Amino acid sequence: MIEIMNKSQLLQLDNHGRLRHFLTIEGLNAPLIQSLLDKAEGFLDISRQPIKKSSLLQGKTVTNLFFEPSTRTRTTFELAAKRLSADVMNINIATSSTTKGESLLDTLRNLEAMHTDIFVVRHDQSGAAHFIAEYVDKNVAVINGGDGRHAHPTQAILDMLTIRQHKSSFENLRVAIVGDILHSRVARSELQALQLLGVGEIHVIAPKTLLPRFIEQYGVKVFYDLSEGLRDVDVVMMLRLQKERMLSALLPNEQEYYRCYGLTEERLACAKPDAIVMHPGPINRHVEIAPSVADGKQSVILQQVSNGIAVRMAVMAMIMENRSS
Amino acid sequence: MIEIMNKSQLLQLDNHGRLRHFLTIEGLNAPLIQSLLDKAEGFLDISRQPIKKSSLLQGKTVTNLFFEPSTRTRTTFELAAKRLSADVMNINIATSSTTKGESLLDTLRNLEAMHTDIFVVRHDQSGAAHFIAEYVDKNVAVINGGDGRHAHPTQAILDMLTIRQHKSSFENLRVAIVGDILHSRVARSELQALQLLGVGEIHVIAPKTLLPRFIEQYGVKVFYDLSEGLRDVDVVMMLRLQKERMLSALLPNEQEYYRCYGLTEERLACAKPDAIVMHPGPINRHVEIAPSVADGKQSVILQQVSNGIAVRMAVMAMIMENRSS
Amino acid sequence: MIEIMNKSQLLQLDNHGRLRHFLTIEGLNAPLIQSLLDKAEGFLDISRQPIKKSSLLQGKTVTNLFFEPSTRTRTTFELAAKRLSADVMNINIATSSTTKGESLLDTLRNLEAMHTDIFVVRHDQSGAAHFIAEYVDKNVAVINGGDGRHAHPTQAILDMLTIRQHKSSFENLRVAIVGDILHSRVARSELQALQLLGVGEIHVIAPKTLLPRFIEQYGVKVFYDLSEGLRDVDVVMMLRLQKERMLSALLPNEQEYYRCYGLTEERLACAKPDAIVMHPGPINRHVEIAPSVADGKQSVILQQVSNGIAVRMAVMAMIMENRSS
Repeated sequence: MIEIMNKSQLLQLDNHGRLRHFLTIEGLNAPLIQSLLDKAEGFLDISRQPIKKSSLLQGKTVTNLFFEPSTRTRTTFELAAKRLSADVMNINIATSSTTKGESLLDTLRNLEAMHTDIFVVRHDQSGAAHFIAEYVDKNVAVINGGDGRHAHPTQAILDMLTIRQHKSSFENLRVAIVGDILHSRVARSELQALQLLGVGEIHVIAPKTLLPRFIEQYGVKVFYDLSEGLRDVDVVMMLRLQKERMLSALLPNEQEYYRCYGLTEERLACAKPDAIVMHPGPINRHVEIAPSVADGKQSVILQQVSNGIAVRMAVMAMIMENRSS
Repeated sequence: MIEIMNKSQLLQLDNHGRLRHFLTIEGLNAPLIQSLLDKAEGFLDISRQPIKKSSLLQGKTVTNLFFEPSTRTRTTFELAAKRLSADVMNINIATSSTTKGESLLDTLRNLEAMHTDIFVVRHDQSGAAHFIAEYVDKNVAVINGGDGRHAHPTQAILDMLTIRQHKSSFENLRVAIVGDILHSRVARSELQALQLLGVGEIHVIAPKTLLPRFIEQYGVKVFYDLSEGLRDVDVVMMLRLQKERMLSALLPNEQEYYRCYGLTEERLACAKPDAIVMHPGPINRHVEIAPSVADGKQSVILQQVSNGIAVRMAVMAMIMENRSS
Repeated sequence: MIEIMNKSQLLQLDNHGRLRHFLTIEGLNAPLIQSLLDKAEGFLDISRQPIKKSSLLQGKTVTNLFFEPSTRTRTTFELAAKRLSADVMNINIATSSTTKGESLLDTLRNLEAMHTDIFVVRHDQSGAAHFIAEYVDKNVAVINGGDGRHAHPTQAILDMLTIRQHKSSFENLRVAIVGDILHSRVARSELQALQLLGVGEIHVIAPKTLLPRFIEQYGVKVFYDLSEGLRDVDVVMMLRLQKERMLSALLPNEQEYYRCYGLTEERLACAKPDAIVMHPGPINRHVEIAPSVADGKQSVILQQVSNGIAVRMAVMAMIMENRSS
């Protein structure tokens, strides 16, 4: 895993330190992230206009390569690309010609030869987007739409955008990440982004079975008690609990998890009064979050979704600009 | 059911009595329907031109939310939206993230947050489109693409357009609706539209097991004999027989149904010589209709399909105009 | 089969001998094929530009009617149509309303009534595209995307384009076609195209069980030995081995097939030093071709893919031009 990350850092930047792929948050720097956030703000304005359309990617082809189903992520990338006027192809690899015995690389080579400009890759194996970026034709950009437990960098950027819309600076923030840190690509990318942006204090809150070993070396404070970990935080980032974890004996059951780690109004009261509540979705109500909190006035969960389209537009636009100049 | 209808009437009109959603025919008025028909005629002209394209919905996003599969209806809405230059998303809910445990409302909220402008909803439960319209963000319009046994309003409008193209006025018409009235959302919407437009006489023709109780109170004449019911009618509206009905013991079998209620040339001869034959499709040949009638010169079944795209363009365009002014 | 071909020849040309459908190579002439190749070269230029877009099919509707799944062919037709600015509908017939009992002709009639301009048809039955072209409305063009063992004419044209890009003329070429000639629509269409373009000598190389009877009457030389058949050829056209053939006892097993008919570097050395290696994809590595050959410098397999989009653009554009003038 560590090796994947190091390689990805190098692979995704050109000689001028500009994005040519978008594989991971690791190895980026604060100015680059801030410029992505600025660009996304511009696209948010477009999304609020009667004609939600930019011509920046006209005549470009964006191919969604989904090896793992995800309506939400696929939909946001598809909409983002269409609003940039790109032509969009959805390829569900499970049902594609890999069933005829074609290898992944042959599939890639074929899609490249069709003059695809961007691959958006979603895969259940860590390192898949990196692998594709390494072997892809130099004219094709790869955007990681989530790979295994490794990274989900567009999710982290949209989360940072959401925080920036509510808080005046990152430096003085106290941010809590709650839940299944161990298996979460979202958590990994969020942690990296928060640290790059110089967030004051990061709390991670989870049962021991859902924490990576040596997590403290990442400069975070670890809490096993939710109320304690939430004390005086500005931002609460909830993670989705994969129900599969129950089966693997890492957790007792949903009720028990909710009793200890579910974000209820009572517990949220430990955070600052103006703390915002975030979740990457889809939500498991009554598992990791109470409905009254998910739908409450501190929740910015749906704003995250809106930001998601603008951020994906910004990533695609920035990469295509870098490659054309 | 009755409660759904009453609420839907109110929900779909704005304070000026203009369409803001399109959920049901009930509660509309003749001028509104006529203006939809006029608008659809304009779009029919576009469909006959070499460049079948209007820019009215450019930069808008239309999301087809199909909880029940329907190639034909989905295709016509998709084409209608594309010909208006909208971006179109197809979401098949059965395979979407509801399988990850996301509730319908959460799915809706997410799609709203992506700045969808129109939801086209198809669902096997009566009242589903109404439910969605009730809870959806006020910036999103809902169009009912068929909900359970309740309503299929765009089908009714395209049927009225087809009649208007062949008959000089609605007032003097005698119209027969033949088949499974009891389970048909198409029949319900057609009956309401015909009555709003002041059709002279409506015959419903069906076996007792396929008629709603108290049907007479809707101001229609009931016939159990097809030839008798068709006497001197101007318009014959056939309904599709759901083959599932056979299993539920409401009907003996297909042959028997065809013997009694199949529209053959002999029976059609009971109608006026210039009577038109309509069917919402897909046709069950040799079940509810003889091939020679379906393909005969009195059949306007394919004209209905062409009208379907123009009507769906008209509904989308009218709603978006009402919302922007 | 022979009757299909004869009829298709007539059906696909208008009174001026211009393409109105594209069903088969048979019955075309060299100038028509050359003009398709010229047109495709123009579209290749577009594919290399930053804005890969032509407005030639704006406002037209292209419907992909796929009765047999094929990600690669569907994708290339879809991209070709989108790059011509057409609206594209993908209809997977297996999952469409034919499951509701609608017949193929009724489905066609419905799609016609939606003012589709082009049907791209893929079907596992020989003659399917012809059948559809025969019964389709005169305003709709049919393009054969592969029908049973009969024809795959766009594949043959893209193969000819690839050859023309590498060799100065067709007349002096020696071309080998290797593999399952008997079951291959690709081979059938390639053979016809090569002969129309006046290729000097055609070798077909296959085990007896994979050759049609009386193949010699087509003016080709038959070889059962690969090295012998490849001697001094300019072009090697490999065919995909359908693994199903193993089951039907026509072939012993993959290893044995590869031992006798797999294209290795050693065997390729029998051909001219500048011979090109072609394959319609998807490749079965270690079955019909060695990876070092598939990825080697004589391979033009990915160029074929790029050419495939340009050729499909050319076919659509030419047919629509012929129909509008």
